Amino acid sequence: MGKGVNKIDTQTGSFSSAGFHILPVRVYYEETDAAGIVYYANYLRFAERARTELLREIGVAHESIKKNWSVEFVVRSCNANYIAPAFLDDVLEVRTTCTKIKGASIALRQAVARNCEELVVMDVIIASRSHISGRAVRIPNEVRVAFQQFAELENEV
Amino acid sequence: MGKGVNKIDTQTGSFSSAGFHILPVRVYYEETDAAGIVYYANYLRFAERARTELLREIGVAHESIKKNWSVEFVVRSCNANYIAPAFLDDVLEVRTTCTKIKGASIALRQAVARNCEELVVMDVIIASRSHISGRAVRIPNEVRVAFQQFAELENEV
Amino acid sequence: MGKGVNKIDTQTGSFSSAGFHILPVRVYYEETDAAGIVYYANYLRFAERARTELLREIGVAHESIKKNWSVEFVVRSCNANYIAPAFLDDVLEVRTTCTKIKGASIALRQAVARNCEELVVMDVIIASRSHISGRAVRIPNEVRVAFQQFAELENEV
Amino acid sequence: MGKGVNKIDTQTGSFSSAGFHILPVRVYYEETDAAGIVYYANYLRFAERARTELLREIGVAHESIKKNWSVEFVVRSCNANYIAPAFLDDVLEVRTTCTKIKGASIALRQAVARNCEELVVMDVIIASRSHISGRAVRIPNEVRVAFQQFAELENEV
Repeated sequence: MGKGVNKIDTQTGSFSSAGFHILPVRVYYEETDAAGIVYYANYLRFAERARTELLREIGVAHESIKKNWSVEFVVRSCNANYIAPAFLDDVLEVRTTCTKIKGASIALRQAVARNCEELVVMDVIIASRSHISGRAVRIPNEVRVAFQQFAELENEV
Repeated sequence: MGKGVNKIDTQTGSFSSAGFHILPVRVYYEETDAAGIVYYANYLRFAERARTELLREIGVAHESIKKNWSVEFVVRSCNANYIAPAFLDDVLEVRTTCTKIKGASIALRQAVARNCEELVVMDVIIASRSHISGRAVRIPNEVRVAFQQFAELENEV
Repeated sequence: MGKGVNKIDTQTGSFSSAGFHILPVRVYYEETDAAGIVYYANYLRFAERARTELLREIGVAHESIKKNWSVEFVVRSCNANYIAPAFLDDVLEVRTTCTKIKGASIALRQAVARNCEELVVMDVIIASRSHISGRAVRIPNEVRVAFQQFAELENEV
Repeated sequence: MGKGVNKIDTQTGSFSSAGFHILPVRVYYEETDAAGIVYYANYLRFAERARTELLREIGVAHESIKKNWSVEFVVRSCNANYIAPAFLDDVLEVRTTCTKIKGASIALRQAVARNCEELVVMDVIIASRSHISGRAVRIPNEVRVAFQQFAELENEV
């Protein structure tokens, strides 16, 4: 057993008892700006990390969707409301819930929170499209089921 | 007159004959992602550059607002619609119009376009607040007048 | 006990049995570029995250150094060698060792590795300076001791 | 001729009378951090923008190199020395000179300066490699000649 063969645990998300997906995020210098707060565009980076981990955890990671069905998700819209700022060194969490599943798109609500306080809330619509033609396509059934189970998890709580 | 005292012209914006503010933007590697397109959060960076140049050109730059009235603008919301992707090396322009001026906030429409095609449209609300207390404050009169003249410019076209 | 009061575990680093500090890093879209690889400047972001976590773990976090001694560390130089690219979804680790401790500066070797392979190696010199005057100052004794213990840890292995 | 068909002039570089390539850069919020200065990794973004514009101006733009010879340049090393910080709203310039041309690599010195003061100096080595195999290849002759003419321009001054 040489150097570097230790197992690596990167940050992953989890599902809260309240039914949403949680990705913890630490704020580093790179995300802040000269106003001393997290730069407004960077919350969208946090949200994207959370969606990537969510997809991985419900079993339909980016790469597997592309490989199995030649489908990829793209962001069609993102409506961000900035309520309060986050600061350097803050420990945040991105809480993601699935609010609607349609034929070729999924609506997510993604809140960046510090303790119990929601700082930024984003309503995001992601659309499935063919990786080859670039055209909108129906969400593959297995992916839809994975999201439905995730959405139901929330409703059960 | 030694080396380096040549005048530097950075990218600035201008006002189009159609009444909106234009900031040209070139897409570099840093803004793209592995999907081969501009990463979705980076359009908000383009939009912020455009707002900064707009403020400068209508005579109420960030720094002067802070210095003269202890006021700063913060983004309260940003509703981004992604219509088509931008690519590496693209020459884009951010077209900004002022759609509403209220007591303590201003609504802007910011479109990132390539040639005549709008790729991403953002509805952005910026709010004025005290640099000292952090509380919402009325937009200083001189700033309001500057925005009103800009908004009228558009209507005249 | 309402929603959101669950404990948050953000990604932290650890010390390997081989004597270096390790911070795991997952590659997201935001870090990649149109060439399909991690953009070269972003390895410096990974390195900065690792230094921040290292400082925290040896008990001399950024904020405490500033608060206790009015001192902050700044990067004086960074010599990055790019050996092989990292890709989207890669699980990387930043391995940091302390190679030299001087009066007002510390030399670190920071390698970004995938499995056993070093992809990018950075030799970084950080310098301590007064948070108030901005001038170079001696590294506070407690901070020096913390780094010495970390450096010795490596030598013992 | 409707809206939006006005010609767009993005920021480009130029050649100074002192024989180096200059790209002006304005510092926006996105590049700064909570320490109130430009984040150290972002100087590498400025440098990359300058290299891209330099290549374009000497007639061997990224895209044309790839298209004509299936060759691309990658950064092999970047040795950055941080002398003094840049701040929000600063007008900077990236000054690039070609210091050595070898069979499959080119050495550049890239300084980020404010007025006459060099803030950050980067020694960058870019290597040519096959876009298809990923292996190191000789720099295409036309590209080499373009760089030699640029390098001679400097020596003549």
